[in-house]
Amino acid sequence: MSVLLNIAMFPTDHGESKSEYVSQVIKVIRECGYPYQLTPMATIIETEELSQALAIIQKCYDVLEDLDCNRVYSIITFDIRKGHDNRLKSKVESIESKIGEVSK
Amino acid sequence: MSVLLNIAMFPTDHGESKSEYVSQVIKVIRECGYPYQLTPMATIIETEELSQALAIIQKCYDVLEDLDCNRVYSIITFDIRKGHDNRLKSKVESIESKIGEVSK
Amino acid sequence: MSVLLNIAMFPTDHGESKSEYVSQVIKVIRECGYPYQLTPMATIIETEELSQALAIIQKCYDVLEDLDCNRVYSIITFDIRKGHDNRLKSKVESIESKIGEVSK
Amino acid sequence: MSVLLNIAMFPTDHGESKSEYVSQVIKVIRECGYPYQLTPMATIIETEELSQALAIIQKCYDVLEDLDCNRVYSIITFDIRKGHDNRLKSKVESIESKIGEVSK
Repeated sequence: MSVLLNIAMFPTDHGESKSEYVSQVIKVIRECGYPYQLTPMATIIETEELSQALAIIQKCYDVLEDLDCNRVYSIITFDIRKGHDNRLKSKVESIESKIGEVSK
Repeated sequence: MSVLLNIAMFPTDHGESKSEYVSQVIKVIRECGYPYQLTPMATIIETEELSQALAIIQKCYDVLEDLDCNRVYSIITFDIRKGHDNRLKSKVESIESKIGEVSK
Repeated sequence: MSVLLNIAMFPTDHGESKSEYVSQVIKVIRECGYPYQLTPMATIIETEELSQALAIIQKCYDVLEDLDCNRVYSIITFDIRKGHDNRLKSKVESIESKIGEVSK
Repeated sequence: MSVLLNIAMFPTDHGESKSEYVSQVIKVIRECGYPYQLTPMATIIETEELSQALAIIQKCYDVLEDLDCNRVYSIITFDIRKGHDNRLKSKVESIESKIGEVSK
């Protein structure tokens, strides 16, 4: 099974720039050890089980709570598919096989 | 603490109408016993801890897996706020106190 | 055609409480004259064409820009379906016909 | 002004694999000529005005309508910020300046 978790999480009570907080969240994700990709809008992580992905969400929130964030917003999409793996790479490759090179 | 979980989850491998599957997901949510509200686009559930909300997500997926869904998509937003509760009602009331009655 | 637009839009540069800004956005949506429903997490609007829904998004942003919001975040989902209408009501009714009464 | 549009759009009435349809949507985005980045979960496009981003959403839907998609789902996030540009690159760089190299 391949679980793709696309997650953005940030405080909404700490002013305009979020990168200080977001960087701590991404540090936590990096330390989890799963394949991931940081994009300009979110982080995409691939796990084998949904429970592993849910545990990452909890860890991301825990670090913001430790940083005294009083209000936290998170936007998450899951694409869960059985009988597939390594989709962090293969989804983009599948598109390129159909329409040629894309910016990635 | 008030955790608002806005969740839509559906299979993408079972044709155009999703209501048969979505209704099973909502049945699971209803049985969890937390305050919730079904909207035309998602279900909003309020819990006191993030871990409770994450457990609901797992249960929603489990029921779709039992129904032989091979590919599942989910769109989730969290609004987590400390020092507040009963926001399933109070957020809309707060808006109405500012601009008068709205359709809800 | 039925276009369901689920939209949350708020500034992220103006402190913890967003209801002052969100209420102005909802006022704009109310004045557009389409059927809509305010939920604790977003507003759902039904239009007949996608172009009408996109025009609403522009109007929502314009009001926040007028209120000197420097950074605005928006989370949107579209469910567009041909050959259907009045889905703001019928989607929830379809669920209830399968599993009985729900909180709505 | 920098408008970051994160968009996933796909039919839900055409079976499990979406890449045939998604690739046509991405072809349209590529032809629009704005800087963009395809990720495993969505496409991120940067425009200077919101109206340009909304026009892209319309074009993406138009191509799916031409391909006889009866039901289309789309998940969109906007991050709109004044006084900034080139955020398709600078947001990730800002994170790396704080926590070192990330997978991107």
